[in-house]
Amino acid sequence: MSLAAAVAAQRGLVAGLLDRLAEIGRDPPGITRHAYGEREDAAHALVAGMARDLGLEVARDAAANLAMTWPGADRAAPRVMLGSHLDSVRHGGNFDGAAGVVAALAAIAALRGTGFAPRADVTAMAFRCEEAVWFGLGLIGSRAALGLLPREALEARRADTGETLAAHIRRSGGAPEAIAPGAPLIPPGAVRCFLEAHIEQAPSLAEAGLPLAIATGIPGNLRHAAIRIAGEDAHVGLPRRFRRDAALAGAELFTALDALWREEEAAGRAMAFTIGRFHTPVETHELTKVSGSFALSLDLRAYDPAHLAALERRLHAIVAEVAARCRVSIALGPRSAAPVGPCDAALRAQLAEAAARMGVATMPLGSPASHDAANFAAAGIPTGLLLVRNTNGSHNPREAMEVDDLMAAAATFAAWLAAQA
Amino acid sequence: MSLAAAVAAQRGLVAGLLDRLAEIGRDPPGITRHAYGEREDAAHALVAGMARDLGLEVARDAAANLAMTWPGADRAAPRVMLGSHLDSVRHGGNFDGAAGVVAALAAIAALRGTGFAPRADVTAMAFRCEEAVWFGLGLIGSRAALGLLPREALEARRADTGETLAAHIRRSGGAPEAIAPGAPLIPPGAVRCFLEAHIEQAPSLAEAGLPLAIATGIPGNLRHAAIRIAGEDAHVGLPRRFRRDAALAGAELFTALDALWREEEAAGRAMAFTIGRFHTPVETHELTKVSGSFALSLDLRAYDPAHLAALERRLHAIVAEVAARCRVSIALGPRSAAPVGPCDAALRAQLAEAAARMGVATMPLGSPASHDAANFAAAGIPTGLLLVRNTNGSHNPREAMEVDDLMAAAATFAAWLAAQA
Repeated sequence: MSLAAAVAAQRGLVAGLLDRLAEIGRDPPGITRHAYGEREDAAHALVAGMARDLGLEVARDAAANLAMTWPGADRAAPRVMLGSHLDSVRHGGNFDGAAGVVAALAAIAALRGTGFAPRADVTAMAFRCEEAVWFGLGLIGSRAALGLLPREALEARRADTGETLAAHIRRSGGAPEAIAPGAPLIPPGAVRCFLEAHIEQAPSLAEAGLPLAIATGIPGNLRHAAIRIAGEDAHVGLPRRFRRDAALAGAELFTALDALWREEEAAGRAMAFTIGRFHTPVETHELTKVSGSFALSLDLRAYDPAHLAALERRLHAIVAEVAARCRVSIALGPRSAAPVGPCDAALRAQLAEAAARMGVATMPLGSPASHDAANFAAAGIPTGLLLVRNTNGSHNPREAMEVDDLMAAAATFAAWLAAQA
Repeated sequence: MSLAAAVAAQRGLVAGLLDRLAEIGRDPPGITRHAYGEREDAAHALVAGMARDLGLEVARDAAANLAMTWPGADRAAPRVMLGSHLDSVRHGGNFDGAAGVVAALAAIAALRGTGFAPRADVTAMAFRCEEAVWFGLGLIGSRAALGLLPREALEARRADTGETLAAHIRRSGGAPEAIAPGAPLIPPGAVRCFLEAHIEQAPSLAEAGLPLAIATGIPGNLRHAAIRIAGEDAHVGLPRRFRRDAALAGAELFTALDALWREEEAAGRAMAFTIGRFHTPVETHELTKVSGSFALSLDLRAYDPAHLAALERRLHAIVAEVAARCRVSIALGPRSAAPVGPCDAALRAQLAEAAARMGVATMPLGSPASHDAANFAAAGIPTGLLLVRNTNGSHNPREAMEVDDLMAAAATFAAWLAAQA
């Protein structure tokens, strides 16, 4: 059986697995698979059962991540690892995360069906809790696996239930006491490279009419979750020259950052910023009150560490300028950051060749978002990322990925494994 | 006794009354006298008692407004009416409203002390529920008195208690069934003119170093309490060209209106706009989500009906332009409006002369805000308004009015009454 035919034979498995994952996550108007919750547990159990049916070894680590291994000839040799996550945001879509786990399994099943025998182990991973909405920090399973999870993260509380991450990990079968920064659950040197497939969170591929992109890099980000602007509450009749309007300062900050983005884009320097929370205080704001206080969140991202650092300096300059002009104070508050995740040049070339061999047209594309793969890159492990066409973005119920496009990712992985594993 | 000495003799009454009103409203960190609530009732009872002590006739109308009358020689002749309101916003200051009632009483008491006998009645009024924060509509007592209260307003519910305005009026001793649009509680022709003193809601007088201003006009306003912007929720990684960011559209709308204000101000056309509520949806907004929805309120005000109409056309043009540029829809939602309240030219001149006679320096100034006086102007009754120096704006606990400045207003009223009443 040709590799192409072997991949095509997995279409039923892929479509069926996606349907069953959607059923587990069903929470109209979307899909919810709570990280370290019953639905993520159920998704892990479903995928583990499927892996056993395919003849893979199934194991779980202290973070309750799921490892599904196709044993190679040399069990001690550094392995190829590929995968993604099974949790979702609340009322999200079915494909953000799950598609990458399914593609990894399908690639392994297809190549195994041709009688191929890998030199070293090939492990498909389903990581836990990639989404930041549950515990205020994302990529938790892969961070834990790589010894990159900050110690205090285990005490983070799920926004709605108030229960700690450690308690959640324990209930999902993990061992939080075995998770520590600098203590990777995957032994150093055990992973030769990491590959992930993930739906694109933007419609660039839809716009280009291509099913697949080879990611050129994963953006690092800088986040200020709780920026506070303090001016002065005032009466609706206060003349302009006396006002210290915190909401206007927020508006000026937003439009100044948007102007910066336009400028960077025109100069060919890819970046993004998002102000997702942007609000006067809902308890006390009034139709007839100039607002003396305002709150906003900021996520700023770029693909190059020096560029990200330069953007942070620009941010500080813009903040100072707006604060002075609007006569307010602006406190950026706590800062968090995720490193830029470079994609390995050799892997990029190999993945592009593998796709071409399978008749899959691809293009290079900066990943719009961060992914579990970014932790592997940060840990110094060569990393590759495939982005799958998706029309309506992610983190919403209208995510639209065609199974055929995911099959193109599985085919690319299978061809890459056939050449490299 | 000279009139100046008679006014000065009322300083103790003025300061004492203000202190007792503050005690009734005490609600740290400010003053709260709920409209048609126990504290406004208590303030009305206190002021009514004081009026009786001064020998005035005390009456209440169907809206529970308080009328305190110094009988004139001809009881049937059109009377002079002067006053303001006793309610406050929540955690506001002591002077917004109450100062004008106290100044009216002090002026009457002072002139009465000189042995003066008015030709017609002189009535000091304490209106109910001037503040819009309680029932979503302001100037309620004076609207009802003049037959200007829309019928549906009686069914408006207080934001926190959910109880209707009608029920509140009844509990405060009024008769809501007697209140109707076109059915004024004050007989047409019964009022010769209306005078109000009110603290300035801006520090223009403090800036100018003057105690008192003669208002040139009361602004009309146009309000959209619930403007909604609809774009599309999206992932934080979505490139700029695909975004339909409702919060960015809100920011652009705010800065465009601010640019309009700068332009109008430079051209010498007085106006103001306030966006008091300005927010992403607090239930669903996220650090990592481009917001597809946004809400804001708008109050737009000016002193000339034609100018206000022109500004409304500019608003519509700006809204259309921002909606197109940001690829969002902007629904202005319900519109309410208050007419421009012109100040009577003869009264303005008489008040300036009266002040000058009492040694009080004044300047002309557009009222920053609307007042009960605006309803009298709208009803076609000649209207005058004194603005009293106040450093820290109003609707906040730091309102700062000096009793001496209020005495300057009382002196001006007393001198005007001596010349005209």
